[in-house]
Amino acid sequence: MKRISVDMDGVIANVYSQFVAMHAAEFGKLVTADEMNGKPEDVAFENALQYVRSPGFFRSAPVIEDSKEVLRKLNDQYKIFIVSAAMEFPNSLVEKHAWLNEHFPFIGWQQMVFCGSKEIIKADIMIDDHFKNLNFFTGETILFTQPHNKLANALDHKRVENWQEIERLLLP
Amino acid sequence: MKRISVDMDGVIANVYSQFVAMHAAEFGKLVTADEMNGKPEDVAFENALQYVRSPGFFRSAPVIEDSKEVLRKLNDQYKIFIVSAAMEFPNSLVEKHAWLNEHFPFIGWQQMVFCGSKEIIKADIMIDDHFKNLNFFTGETILFTQPHNKLANALDHKRVENWQEIERLLLP
Repeated sequence: MKRISVDMDGVIANVYSQFVAMHAAEFGKLVTADEMNGKPEDVAFENALQYVRSPGFFRSAPVIEDSKEVLRKLNDQYKIFIVSAAMEFPNSLVEKHAWLNEHFPFIGWQQMVFCGSKEIIKADIMIDDHFKNLNFFTGETILFTQPHNKLANALDHKRVENWQEIERLLLP
Repeated sequence: MKRISVDMDGVIANVYSQFVAMHAAEFGKLVTADEMNGKPEDVAFENALQYVRSPGFFRSAPVIEDSKEVLRKLNDQYKIFIVSAAMEFPNSLVEKHAWLNEHFPFIGWQQMVFCGSKEIIKADIMIDDHFKNLNFFTGETILFTQPHNKLANALDHKRVENWQEIERLLLP
């Protein structure tokens, strides 16, 4: 069975909706797609780092559309690992664990990985929204479109816009 | 630079001294080496699972002798990753993160990995006290002696008794 490393923030957890909501609450203004596309999160939202450190930021993030349904199917045919670079924000560890248990109850604790650098991950396929993770991975790489990477050339990664595309790609 | 995956419990964190102390506090009896050698932790200490779930169990674990000094030296010549199967006990996540920051401040968050199964770990060398982790690892394997594995044949793993042996092995 092939192993898939699935990123959390920006792939199954909708952190952008959290950024937009918290920015709107603080500044009274909804950041538009044009304003965030092509910019790192902490440029598009000037207080992004403060938001991710707020209790509840990760725990209350919405689930990205179709990720639950497609991952449930993938979980039967692949070894799925949810791999999140959570170590930078220690308060996120418990929130992310609880979030996964709530929204992805079919993912066992054996399948969860919280790390710093992803260079230590051994898998066949990596689904991620960050080049810094995909570029050093030796297997098949899938770039999940998010505003920060939207304007970039996908290089040798396969770009997907949503989980339905992933389903067509990995469960043909 | 070669990557080393270093286990936490039973390799750098002295969980046995916690088991012995908590068992003594509960039953008024010090478990001897003979009584724990060759037995899984939850057989040698009947309430072991309850102890590991107690707040403070991981946070207050002593550091295994010489691990700090040797890891500090190894950290200059290898890429060190501290890889702990922490996901089974979510309350341990924050405790282990804080413990590492206190006792191993030279280990950055980029070098920490909390996982379930270690089959997703890619490294050149793995130091661990559990066969279940070493047996499926494709690189060089070092079995760190702990009471539960003391009577077992080390198979094709290199058995070491302490961190001074690791230093001689990896920093010749």
